Amino acid sequence: MEKVEKIERLDRKLVHEGAVISIYEDTVQIPNGNVAKWDFIGHKGAAAVVPVCDDGKILMVHQYRNALDRETVEVPAGGRDSIDEPYLACAYRELEEETGYRAEEEDFEFLISLKTTVAFCNEQIEVYVAKNLKKTHQNLDEDEYINVKAYELDELLDMIYSGKMQDGKTVSAILAYKLKYAK
Amino acid sequence: MEKVEKIERLDRKLVHEGAVISIYEDTVQIPNGNVAKWDFIGHKGAAAVVPVCDDGKILMVHQYRNALDRETVEVPAGGRDSIDEPYLACAYRELEEETGYRAEEEDFEFLISLKTTVAFCNEQIEVYVAKNLKKTHQNLDEDEYINVKAYELDELLDMIYSGKMQDGKTVSAILAYKLKYAK
Repeated sequence: MEKVEKIERLDRKLVHEGAVISIYEDTVQIPNGNVAKWDFIGHKGAAAVVPVCDDGKILMVHQYRNALDRETVEVPAGGRDSIDEPYLACAYRELEEETGYRAEEEDFEFLISLKTTVAFCNEQIEVYVAKNLKKTHQNLDEDEYINVKAYELDELLDMIYSGKMQDGKTVSAILAYKLKYAK
Repeated sequence: MEKVEKIERLDRKLVHEGAVISIYEDTVQIPNGNVAKWDFIGHKGAAAVVPVCDDGKILMVHQYRNALDRETVEVPAGGRDSIDEPYLACAYRELEEETGYRAEEEDFEFLISLKTTVAFCNEQIEVYVAKNLKKTHQNLDEDEYINVKAYELDELLDMIYSGKMQDGKTVSAILAYKLKYAK
């Protein structure tokens, strides 16, 4: 096999169409000449929000996560309806659907951009901070069961460093918010 | 369909065995009585390291990521050999393999624990800080091509907030290090 200068993808084959992800088997050529099969998970992307109440508390969602077999504490977040949906529109929608609080688009500020697990997946999550929250009502998907609770920022930081709150987007979002806004 | 009090998994079926992940289709019963198919990705877990040089700079790895079709800047990290490998042993091994620097086990300190993408995957990454680094040599897997570069912490923070460095474990690790050690 001729050597290539860098890793080159020779083929991408769909092996399973999941509910929210697409699973592919990639064939890649390595610079040493080897040809290998690598995993690739395609994802439509998502948005997450750090919703900051007027008193500085942060709204978090509690939900059961099948992949972990337990409940998690997370910032509100959700997948884009399609790869064409603007991330901000997704954030705006998911905040109100999951928490029952709404913010105007001008009260959303971009915080950070994440790729959740780059070794095998292209999932991107754009994280925003939202302020000037107004109470409306939750509008959950029919398979969503979510409880909302407001936390002090310091309490969330304790949960991160004690290992009680582990969700990657949430850890990144809360730490990034702390460093940028609450030094 | 009888209603259940909480989400209950009725079945878990392997649909594809990948190179580093296993893809399952779960059948779950929702409290509203619906039965749904959900994605589940099984992963062996991984460890990541924030390697801090004596001058305070941080060693980062540059590598091509097939899932993103581009090069990334990440903290050194790698998967466990098996679900029985202690995370610290994995961190110890991956640091030296990827960077060519070694630290004694007592110079590793636990930083945070992450679940990279809880909506569909159980991947856990334990993140450590390593100090008192000693130069040895890289020992890459045959399909790994990695360049190592030392960065100032402030430069890495700029890369996070400007969206130039997006890898989830890396963003969490660098922000958590900054807040804990370099306030």
